[in-house]
Amino acid sequence: MTRVVFLLVPRLHLLDLAGPAQVFSTADDLGHSYGITYVSEREDVPTAQGITLRAGTEWPELTPDDLVVVPGWRTKGLRERVDVPRALLDRLVEHHDAGGTVASICAGADALGRAGLLDGRRCTTHHDVQDELARRYPKAHVVRDVLYVTDGRVITSAGIASGIDLALHLVALRHGAAVAARVAREMVVFARRNGDDQQHSAMLRHRAHLSDAVHHAQDLIDARYTSALRLSELASSVGLSERSLTRHFTHATGLTPLRYQQELRVEHAEHLIAQGSTVESAARAVGFQDARMLRRLRGRAQSCPAPAADREPAGLR
Amino acid sequence: MTRVVFLLVPRLHLLDLAGPAQVFSTADDLGHSYGITYVSEREDVPTAQGITLRAGTEWPELTPDDLVVVPGWRTKGLRERVDVPRALLDRLVEHHDAGGTVASICAGADALGRAGLLDGRRCTTHHDVQDELARRYPKAHVVRDVLYVTDGRVITSAGIASGIDLALHLVALRHGAAVAARVAREMVVFARRNGDDQQHSAMLRHRAHLSDAVHHAQDLIDARYTSALRLSELASSVGLSERSLTRHFTHATGLTPLRYQQELRVEHAEHLIAQGSTVESAARAVGFQDARMLRRLRGRAQSCPAPAADREPAGLR
Repeated sequence: MTRVVFLLVPRLHLLDLAGPAQVFSTADDLGHSYGITYVSEREDVPTAQGITLRAGTEWPELTPDDLVVVPGWRTKGLRERVDVPRALLDRLVEHHDAGGTVASICAGADALGRAGLLDGRRCTTHHDVQDELARRYPKAHVVRDVLYVTDGRVITSAGIASGIDLALHLVALRHGAAVAARVAREMVVFARRNGDDQQHSAMLRHRAHLSDAVHHAQDLIDARYTSALRLSELASSVGLSERSLTRHFTHATGLTPLRYQQELRVEHAEHLIAQGSTVESAARAVGFQDARMLRRLRGRAQSCPAPAADREPAGLR
Repeated sequence: MTRVVFLLVPRLHLLDLAGPAQVFSTADDLGHSYGITYVSEREDVPTAQGITLRAGTEWPELTPDDLVVVPGWRTKGLRERVDVPRALLDRLVEHHDAGGTVASICAGADALGRAGLLDGRRCTTHHDVQDELARRYPKAHVVRDVLYVTDGRVITSAGIASGIDLALHLVALRHGAAVAARVAREMVVFARRNGDDQQHSAMLRHRAHLSDAVHHAQDLIDARYTSALRLSELASSVGLSERSLTRHFTHATGLTPLRYQQELRVEHAEHLIAQGSTVESAARAVGFQDARMLRRLRGRAQSCPAPAADREPAGLR
């Protein structure tokens, strides 16, 4: 049996815990023995979602096969710091020193940092607190815009929903991809995501606006980004003139509809290239005639700042 | 403020609760006021994942704007029935009669059925218990293979991870797609799924086997299903001869690599068609030369039984 210990900190995000716990519990239901233990400094652990959990205060005996996971907590940046007691940090170090694996979800990376486990290692955390993690632990190499990072026996994830991806990855490492797929299916997870998948996909990045017509147009482009799209068709589908659509679209997203489609294509192409495709075949797969345009856009993407709409979400003004 | 009441039943699945709770709590963090209340028959509610939750036993005052959600519980079929006390079922009916919305996640649909709220309505539940739900509530119309179903003010979901999709949908209905996208982004959910998306995607359906080489080949096909793939290239990528790849692939999945790629294309095409694409343009978008092959395959798909590998997962023998 593999033991998974969740180290619970007050104000933890319920989903940071529940996602991975559900993965290991489903793997156990399917015959791969996992024993889950929840430990905390005190028995009653309030969550950021307002419900209180009852944890234990005693640690089970651990072997190097076992796993300790630190779910993240609500934080405005990491400013509102949650104090993880030294004794619990020592437990993390002790387990890692003994050959065990330690993982964090979301802001839980801060606990690993304080324990010294991120020094000299690649790691990640939620997009909102990446900068702060990098500042606070200058010896850590914070990888941005990935769902999770494995560096030896220290595994960190962007957190919240991506904690599910990290846990499925751990199940795949231990029991093979077939078992992980079966767990994902039981959990009604549509498809497992790789660690390299971006935290900000273009599909979500340009969605922080309030125009329903533009969202509708984006839905249509998202669904058919590999096809040639006529602006006239798109405009009539959302009930606008071509000129109004372009104006609204550009105002809402900072991009023309065509440029938005190109971003989707480039992003999917990057993903294929990361998986071993040639630039040529990735270009064709995402709808470009050949690789020239893709090469040009890839060059441009790396030199562009984020559009204004992303730096200050229009949805919240 | 919108109040969301989670009705907690012993042995509930932690993620059935945590997914939707995290969605409403994140929406609240982003300035859309939600108040979350957890109620149960008794204060201590054990979960299927072994941790105990502390709920309240008092219901708040509800208005028609408010929402009552019943997370699902662990069940082998619905045989191991969890008794939801009559008083709690009466609360569901009372809220619905007063004009409020009632939702269930996963096996939680059984509570709605017992309350009489599924009679004459379209609904869904987790794929493992759809048949039983249909048998037990013959007046309900159980929709299979969708993530969630909205029928008036009764909303049911396939559950576990898809509870997140349902809750994002509710946020989109109330505050628009932009807010839902922003919540999804904060939660590191890659892309929102529509209710019509299948519980069993081809990408997971044919994964219940133990051959890592075949999983690797499937990963390659999944990533490039719109492109022409050479069997020779695929075989050399996974280190097998063409003949061995085809043999292993067919043994593991019940399909040849080509047929598997076609299934992916048909599935994506169905999705585009459901969103309003013509068959012609959907065919081209997923990589067919024209619509003829797509039409033929769609016809075939509807008359085929599930492959043997799906009826009895090879991964568990």
